[in-house]
Amino acid sequence: MDETADGASQETGTTLFVCVTCRRADAPVPANGHRPGAAMHDALAKGALPEGMRLRAVECLSACSNGCAVALTGPGRWTYVYGNLDPEADPPAILSGAAAYAATADGLVPWRERPLIFRRNAIARVPPLRLEPL
Amino acid sequence: MDETADGASQETGTTLFVCVTCRRADAPVPANGHRPGAAMHDALAKGALPEGMRLRAVECLSACSNGCAVALTGPGRWTYVYGNLDPEADPPAILSGAAAYAATADGLVPWRERPLIFRRNAIARVPPLRLEPL
Repeated sequence: MDETADGASQETGTTLFVCVTCRRADAPVPANGHRPGAAMHDALAKGALPEGMRLRAVECLSACSNGCAVALTGPGRWTYVYGNLDPEADPPAILSGAAAYAATADGLVPWRERPLIFRRNAIARVPPLRLEPL
Repeated sequence: MDETADGASQETGTTLFVCVTCRRADAPVPANGHRPGAAMHDALAKGALPEGMRLRAVECLSACSNGCAVALTGPGRWTYVYGNLDPEADPPAILSGAAAYAATADGLVPWRERPLIFRRNAIARVPPLRLEPL
């Protein structure tokens, strides 16, 4: 089993992907080129990730019209993509939602236990590969 | 290794998820309750899937404002979610795009080889779990 530098397992752990190329319609990219998505990644990297969760920067989640965007995924779990996130205000709620996600076996967090930004800003979800047929 | 009824491997094969609860803003649900997403699933089921690809009906891809929606996924591949698909017109192009996806090792189809509906209608994409760090 592969282990990442922080000890999280790639086979069993969860991952929080953060698009670092995301822009925001309401915020111009600063002169230094540090995009809002990269700023959000930086803020999340300073926070407390749930145990076993990796934080991964990614170039483009194809949610460009809904930046900033993140995705939560893991083996055997539903994958969720969230957009229209605020890189300054939302990192604490993203981490709270990530913790709730990590605490499930299948990625399905009860609706009322999801942060408001997750309830409002789901762009898409994708079943685990082993989804039982309908 | 698990094998599905059609012989596709859950560990190595690809999956085309189709939301069967999707509605279309421009089409009311008919009296029999058969939603546009279910009609699109039926049309895709009659088509030729690429070798090793499973077709799976799923209730809600959380892309409700962008129905009809599908997702292409597979172990080690980028996952793509497409929306705003037409259940009558688009199944042939969806199957063409699915074939191009299945022919890749990582799910990344060159831009010009993607069907027009995939170029225009990507809602989100999610990296494979083993994405190399940036």
